[in-house]
Amino acid sequence: MNTKKAATDYPILPILAERWSPYGFENRPMLETDLCSLFEAARWAASSYNEQPWNYLVATRENSAEFGRLLSCLVEANQAWAKEAPVLVLGIVSLRFGRNNQDNRAAVHDLGLAAGNLLAEATTRGLSVHQMIGILPDKARELYQIPEHFEAWTALAIGYKADPAKLPDALRERDMALRQRKPLNKFVFTGRWGHPMPLASKSAI
Amino acid sequence: MNTKKAATDYPILPILAERWSPYGFENRPMLETDLCSLFEAARWAASSYNEQPWNYLVATRENSAEFGRLLSCLVEANQAWAKEAPVLVLGIVSLRFGRNNQDNRAAVHDLGLAAGNLLAEATTRGLSVHQMIGILPDKARELYQIPEHFEAWTALAIGYKADPAKLPDALRERDMALRQRKPLNKFVFTGRWGHPMPLASKSAI
Repeated sequence: MNTKKAATDYPILPILAERWSPYGFENRPMLETDLCSLFEAARWAASSYNEQPWNYLVATRENSAEFGRLLSCLVEANQAWAKEAPVLVLGIVSLRFGRNNQDNRAAVHDLGLAAGNLLAEATTRGLSVHQMIGILPDKARELYQIPEHFEAWTALAIGYKADPAKLPDALRERDMALRQRKPLNKFVFTGRWGHPMPLASKSAI
Repeated sequence: MNTKKAATDYPILPILAERWSPYGFENRPMLETDLCSLFEAARWAASSYNEQPWNYLVATRENSAEFGRLLSCLVEANQAWAKEAPVLVLGIVSLRFGRNNQDNRAAVHDLGLAAGNLLAEATTRGLSVHQMIGILPDKARELYQIPEHFEAWTALAIGYKADPAKLPDALRERDMALRQRKPLNKFVFTGRWGHPMPLASKSAI
């Protein structure tokens, strides 16, 4: 099994270093209690004015009609691999504050923050999540009667990642690819834009 | 010390249950190595097309000129309490893809996702983070020469949370307030909008 643990320059939590977004999923259902804990983790994220702008629509493969309906809200390129995941989720954001109907500039950010919690919980439970922005929000609105000022923003395929060796060529290549990130000095600045923050010695690891 | 651990309905990681956003911070600097690990955690978040749209500007209280400059990018109500934190950070999002200059619909979401990683790492290290959307993006652009198609979106106050008993009345009340969230059946749906997902028995805890 390819763990693809991050090549970190500074030490971080193993669940953050080990997380990656697989294209290949095992044909194995998730425990219902695990699914509840994933949403419970999202629930306790921070949000601007505690608005909790995150909402989820869930479909499991056991219910093929519901699963097909949710799958149809993804762009075709994502349907091709996401159809193998045991659980699909739409992440739907409330774009206005419930308390005053004003635009919530933090809403989409806070949907991401809740997703961060959900992913940490998933990794702890041996589950993997592959998020997608390639979805059809208008189709989702129509199929699920999503109200005005709410909008489907992301989809999440959740399950147990497959052994890449057992995947078709195209998926295997993607799931074997090494994880790459910009170094900290390209995005952590101090004083002015582009000026790297003086970093502690990496030998601190 | 008030831990305010979340009253969870389903079990989740302690670092997610114990995290909350304090208004009061101890007058105690952070370790430089901790700060590096917080950004390292953000670094390994997922992002659409691996764009990594997150960028950070950092100021520590030790450098009072830089700290004051960053503090001036917060709205006054946030300056009032955030000025006690040992570290302030602006979260700046790249709104377009570097590879083709097209709008990145996932950018703000992915800034939130990176923040989720940063918060998990912070909680593990005994640190707390209070995020803010109440900032002055135009002032930040001017002071730090933030380029076009990038925008300051959030601020983060980072440090050790204070014992609420030692805080002034207004802050103590806020930091003593219980954490509240909607139950899962208000935001996790299946089949159609507003129809709760059948949930595993809570007795599974």
